[in-house]
Amino acid sequence: MKFTVNRNLFLDNLNNVMHAISSRATIPILSGIKLNLTETELLLTGSDTDISIEIKIPVSEDLTVDSTGSIVLPARFFSEIIRRLPGKEFSLEVKESFQTQIISENSEFTINGLDANNYPRLPEIPDESSFVISGKTFREIINETQFAVATQESRLVLTGVHFTFSPDKIHAVATDSHRLSSRALTLENGPQTKTDLIIPGKSLLELARIIGETDPEIKVCPGENQVLFEIGNILFYSRLLEGSYPDTERLIPTDSTTTVEFDLMELSSALDRASLLTHAGRNNVVDLTLDTEKQSAKLSGESAEIGNVEEDVSFKKLEGNNLKISFNPDYLRDALKASVTDSVIMDFTQPLRPFTVNPDKTDINFVQLITPVRTF
Amino acid sequence: MKFTVNRNLFLDNLNNVMHAISSRATIPILSGIKLNLTETELLLTGSDTDISIEIKIPVSEDLTVDSTGSIVLPARFFSEIIRRLPGKEFSLEVKESFQTQIISENSEFTINGLDANNYPRLPEIPDESSFVISGKTFREIINETQFAVATQESRLVLTGVHFTFSPDKIHAVATDSHRLSSRALTLENGPQTKTDLIIPGKSLLELARIIGETDPEIKVCPGENQVLFEIGNILFYSRLLEGSYPDTERLIPTDSTTTVEFDLMELSSALDRASLLTHAGRNNVVDLTLDTEKQSAKLSGESAEIGNVEEDVSFKKLEGNNLKISFNPDYLRDALKASVTDSVIMDFTQPLRPFTVNPDKTDINFVQLITPVRTF
Repeated sequence: MKFTVNRNLFLDNLNNVMHAISSRATIPILSGIKLNLTETELLLTGSDTDISIEIKIPVSEDLTVDSTGSIVLPARFFSEIIRRLPGKEFSLEVKESFQTQIISENSEFTINGLDANNYPRLPEIPDESSFVISGKTFREIINETQFAVATQESRLVLTGVHFTFSPDKIHAVATDSHRLSSRALTLENGPQTKTDLIIPGKSLLELARIIGETDPEIKVCPGENQVLFEIGNILFYSRLLEGSYPDTERLIPTDSTTTVEFDLMELSSALDRASLLTHAGRNNVVDLTLDTEKQSAKLSGESAEIGNVEEDVSFKKLEGNNLKISFNPDYLRDALKASVTDSVIMDFTQPLRPFTVNPDKTDINFVQLITPVRTF
Repeated sequence: MKFTVNRNLFLDNLNNVMHAISSRATIPILSGIKLNLTETELLLTGSDTDISIEIKIPVSEDLTVDSTGSIVLPARFFSEIIRRLPGKEFSLEVKESFQTQIISENSEFTINGLDANNYPRLPEIPDESSFVISGKTFREIINETQFAVATQESRLVLTGVHFTFSPDKIHAVATDSHRLSSRALTLENGPQTKTDLIIPGKSLLELARIIGETDPEIKVCPGENQVLFEIGNILFYSRLLEGSYPDTERLIPTDSTTTVEFDLMELSSALDRASLLTHAGRNNVVDLTLDTEKQSAKLSGESAEIGNVEEDVSFKKLEGNNLKISFNPDYLRDALKASVTDSVIMDFTQPLRPFTVNPDKTDINFVQLITPVRTF
């Protein structure tokens, strides 16, 4: 195996594959990156078993093949080396006993590779039930739900986001059982048959990073235990979570007895201050006191050691019954960060019942639910 | 004690005092910041016993006094609070039992303070042997020597930089016994009598940070066990290291048998690559092989696990005997980072004798010494 390649072209693709490679690989060979060279393309593969990324670099004037073959190289060092090479291009040649020589200008590295035959094979996923979605839509819905997945694995299915793809809609729900985020967006060419997938939150984070700020077409190929996303020359495989996702729709209250509308920035900065001291104490809880007669909204937090804070938060509208409710400020902060409108409407029923955070526009299908904390 | 102050003005000064406050304070009260308000100024004090910083904010239209007094407040939370307050100004009032109320627009904090009478007193340092130096000169000489101090405290005196101030010169030396940096710069108004100070490396780092990119006048007041630097409204106290600093001048070789001149950038990037693999191995050592007949300079490094690298480094001049020498690449990297010229001249005698890294201009008084490693 021997080729010469443009260093920047190679590095861009290498950086994407690196997202799949864990520094704490469970199988030693997975701390490596696999290079497979044919007459027509160079294939880079990285995997941590949960996600796998495969990238094709086609042969061109930027990539010339001397001889085909394959090798696995220590990923971290390999990428550090390529990043620091002096030249615009470099050549890579596999010599005896998997020793791999990398030459760029006056710099010459020889690194110990591994037999690519021992690298795990990626699943084969049939094309038949695939469909195409917009990268921008998918990144948006990931950013608006992924943060709410459970981080503890006591209920494995909750560490993923539950996606339902229909012909004209994509719906995603995530919950860690303390808070929930439910978001729907329209699709132009969704699957003919409704498709349900529970995708691990960590996979989605990496996927969103790879989509980046662009709007590529994404081909979604659902498989048995894995789903494949094709984004240009990138193949992104993720494990799927098995089991049935709880029916979350019934958790969302349909009525409300107190409603308040806040400016997003105003509420965010008041919340930032109110939670400053609660983060120091044992109870990370703030109180929101809504007085509809006095037309006042107060946010307060305290730490026995440090002291207390009270914020008089301005609002746009406040209606219904008086209410005092206590909750974890981090859940509201996450909900506000995910919000897509400049104002949010919060709907409450009772001090111990979940409340919702909603956009101020009814045509946006986005509900966030937060469970309060009992403080008495 | 009660005052109202411009938040940005206060915050800038607070941030400077914070440099002296350790998150792991040995005496609990030192995790606090002391505020002392008189009719004419507000004094902020922070200390970790090694360094103390005191800043005066004079009364002005940006700082109005209602009543004088003093308090100690938890530094980290206090600065987080001030940073997040909503208004352009805030008021601070000490109430009963050291409870301190901070109000800015609709935000109201009450934090638990401590009795300022229990805060340690700063040393009184007489003015008589003081002198003035340029902040730019002092920052430069710190940056060019401080990195070479010992980090282990087995020989305490080596954890400091040894300064000698003369009427027309400032000379600084630092060494951890493996490498040494010796730098001299001219002074305009140095002290009348030669002044010797060994200042802890950590203090100098903070001092350089406070000097920043400006060129303030610094008044140096040497005391018994402490030295005071006056920079505008900032008083910076540092502990001095006691004991006699080794005579380092005799360590610097006066002759050489091999001389090579490198472009700084060229050598730096070759060294970066050569040390990439040695950092992974047990022996962090690179080899430099100079062949004057073949006119070649090679830098190489290896790790038994990962592989090896050889760099053919271009140079501007190479004279004298052939030489192969082994050394810790991190010492050379630090020396190159501190270098003030675009080319450096390295002078060698024997493979096991220290070598020097020098500027390519003879009027610059700057010598760096590196001890090689025996590899056979």
